[in-house]
Amino acid sequence: MGKSLAVSPLAPADFPELPVIDGVTFATAAAGVRYQGRTDLMLALLAPGSSVAGVFTRSATRAAPVLDCQAKIGGSSDAGAAIVVNSGNANAFTGRGGVEAVEAITKAVADVCDIPQSRVFTSSTGVIGEPLPHDRITSALSDLVTKLDACGIADAARAIMTTDTFPKGARADVTVDGKTVSISGIAKGSGMIAPDMATMLVYIFTDALVEQSALQAMLSAHTDATFNCITVDSDTSTSDSLIMAATGASGVDASESDAFSAALHDLMLNLAHQVVKDGEGATKFVEVAVTGALNDKDARVHAMAIANSPLIKTAIAGQDPNWGRVVMAIGKSGAAADRDRLSIRFGDVEVAKDGWRSPDYSEAAAAAHMKGQNIVIGVDLGLGSGVATVWTCDLTHGYIDINADYRS
Amino acid sequence: MGKSLAVSPLAPADFPELPVIDGVTFATAAAGVRYQGRTDLMLALLAPGSSVAGVFTRSATRAAPVLDCQAKIGGSSDAGAAIVVNSGNANAFTGRGGVEAVEAITKAVADVCDIPQSRVFTSSTGVIGEPLPHDRITSALSDLVTKLDACGIADAARAIMTTDTFPKGARADVTVDGKTVSISGIAKGSGMIAPDMATMLVYIFTDALVEQSALQAMLSAHTDATFNCITVDSDTSTSDSLIMAATGASGVDASESDAFSAALHDLMLNLAHQVVKDGEGATKFVEVAVTGALNDKDARVHAMAIANSPLIKTAIAGQDPNWGRVVMAIGKSGAAADRDRLSIRFGDVEVAKDGWRSPDYSEAAAAAHMKGQNIVIGVDLGLGSGVATVWTCDLTHGYIDINADYRS
Repeated sequence: MGKSLAVSPLAPADFPELPVIDGVTFATAAAGVRYQGRTDLMLALLAPGSSVAGVFTRSATRAAPVLDCQAKIGGSSDAGAAIVVNSGNANAFTGRGGVEAVEAITKAVADVCDIPQSRVFTSSTGVIGEPLPHDRITSALSDLVTKLDACGIADAARAIMTTDTFPKGARADVTVDGKTVSISGIAKGSGMIAPDMATMLVYIFTDALVEQSALQAMLSAHTDATFNCITVDSDTSTSDSLIMAATGASGVDASESDAFSAALHDLMLNLAHQVVKDGEGATKFVEVAVTGALNDKDARVHAMAIANSPLIKTAIAGQDPNWGRVVMAIGKSGAAADRDRLSIRFGDVEVAKDGWRSPDYSEAAAAAHMKGQNIVIGVDLGLGSGVATVWTCDLTHGYIDINADYRS
Repeated sequence: MGKSLAVSPLAPADFPELPVIDGVTFATAAAGVRYQGRTDLMLALLAPGSSVAGVFTRSATRAAPVLDCQAKIGGSSDAGAAIVVNSGNANAFTGRGGVEAVEAITKAVADVCDIPQSRVFTSSTGVIGEPLPHDRITSALSDLVTKLDACGIADAARAIMTTDTFPKGARADVTVDGKTVSISGIAKGSGMIAPDMATMLVYIFTDALVEQSALQAMLSAHTDATFNCITVDSDTSTSDSLIMAATGASGVDASESDAFSAALHDLMLNLAHQVVKDGEGATKFVEVAVTGALNDKDARVHAMAIANSPLIKTAIAGQDPNWGRVVMAIGKSGAAADRDRLSIRFGDVEVAKDGWRSPDYSEAAAAAHMKGQNIVIGVDLGLGSGVATVWTCDLTHGYIDINADYRS
């Protein structure tokens, strides 16, 4: 964070107007954990009765706050709950000191909010391996709680940013049993995911009543089809955390509502796409759609091999419809493929068919597609009915600039 | 190949003086397959009795010449044999036309050299998906055979280059049963491996007598510890081919010689390191040495996760001892790791120990190591006795420049 980054060319025009979620209030502060002159701490207080579900990184070196959250998810919802997040320091690979920092922060939040410590969920994002100066966080809390405000979510989205170039928010309004409930979500992330300054954190709130196990099931299922389908650089964070709270304040039970589940999926996909669009150095948003694989799992392996290939990502940066590299990625993925049944398209332009360049191939048409900001690479394996779609961005000089910079 | 690339800063000072291998002659020509003003075709003719072994890419989309070589390896050595290689066009993903091109080339070489077609091995390297103008190759053959020369191997190393910035050669002289035999090898490759212009090809020759199955066993075993332990960008070619011929002209049987096998290993590792040192855009040569893993397989998974991480490779380019990213890569690799037993060193500088920054850590000392041209990242998992060492290079603006350039 030595230098300020230009806003991604793929950023949405504006941060959306997010609905107030009854039962949740937010506050932010500039605690000076690492950054100066900006907020770096956010607190969300959840009313008694809120269900909380979560999905976390599977990294074998995951950070102390992640392990603490995982142990607490699924607990009783009778009391209130809180989510406290700092940016600037990931409290990862910090040994015993990291565990003590989590203990100190969650205890202080529990005290000041008068809730059980077992209901305080904390996340930290930023540099790895530096001791978290947790006293800067705990000493900011008594002032922070006085500022809790139902309208504070946009400020919360800004407080959790690290190398993000824009705050990320999404909303949904759903009719369940003739009544409207709302969902409001924020995310940070600028890689899938740079551990140093750009881990992915997502917080979603709804006033619907959703029983905890139903909330967890929805969140886990949709994560597979949204946040687990994006990649910026194939690197995985020690801190990725997605937490959702359902306050139930609307009195509308959405535990079994397909409409609610569908709206939640769309909101999560929206946030996932925003993370890709803020991918470090990104200038193109890329959809990789694989069909005709032996099964869905194989389709996903092929799609990720394409989306993570540095050669494909640099070709996209160069606006080059270099389909030979797509053939290469499919060949290396390890999943089943038959070279002579393979078809590839860029946008609507068929570039390869049945194992060779398409007879109708127009390099000019393919090149025109590559000049756009939204690129689609379609692959049909011709083997079965397996499908997968994933999203990524291009690999540019901007990525090197951001990541080859000495930490400061 | 639109523009000429500056020679890698990691290149050896000179191409080595390679020994003449009795029983092998070489010729090169400028056939104009794609490039102008340089040689792009090489022929190696092997005396009757030569054993030929080979190791090839496992890509599911491998090219027609690769499939043809794989079918022929292991055949009778009574007749002579030939290796014919063109650069500029990979004859990959070229459908039925690709198979016909291989057929035409191998038949023409068999005719002009008076050897069975089943003993003609061909490789093609360069752009994917373009029909190979094989008539340019076959029409050059009658002149080519008149130029066959025992001293032609250095020219052969140049004729097979694509985006390589220097020709790659290595030699070994081994005493077996009191007599000296020689090994002479050449390679091309500038990525692991860019399919478009930089696939890896390796040809090794010896005058030792090595029975085919013994030669194949040595070659396969050493490939695992040499060429399969390098990575430039995690991408795998459709055309990787390694062919070794033992002419037996020395009359010295090395089929069971440990000294010969060891010398062959060292020569292969030397060539493998040269490929990394010519990695696209490389400015640093990086060794990743993993110890203390649960087993060797896990050690290799961790080592490759580190060596392929764009975040680690960009940090190395930036001369940043960013060990937090090493923690990240270990965490994401999927192999067993215990965060709190992990130790990491850069060169001789211990940066992390037992799950936290080392108490003796000196950022200045680590930064000094990163300023060198040869970087060592050492990781000890503290779990068992599994070990693996792999080699890679940094990820720089040069890589983007080379690969984001529109094909031309």
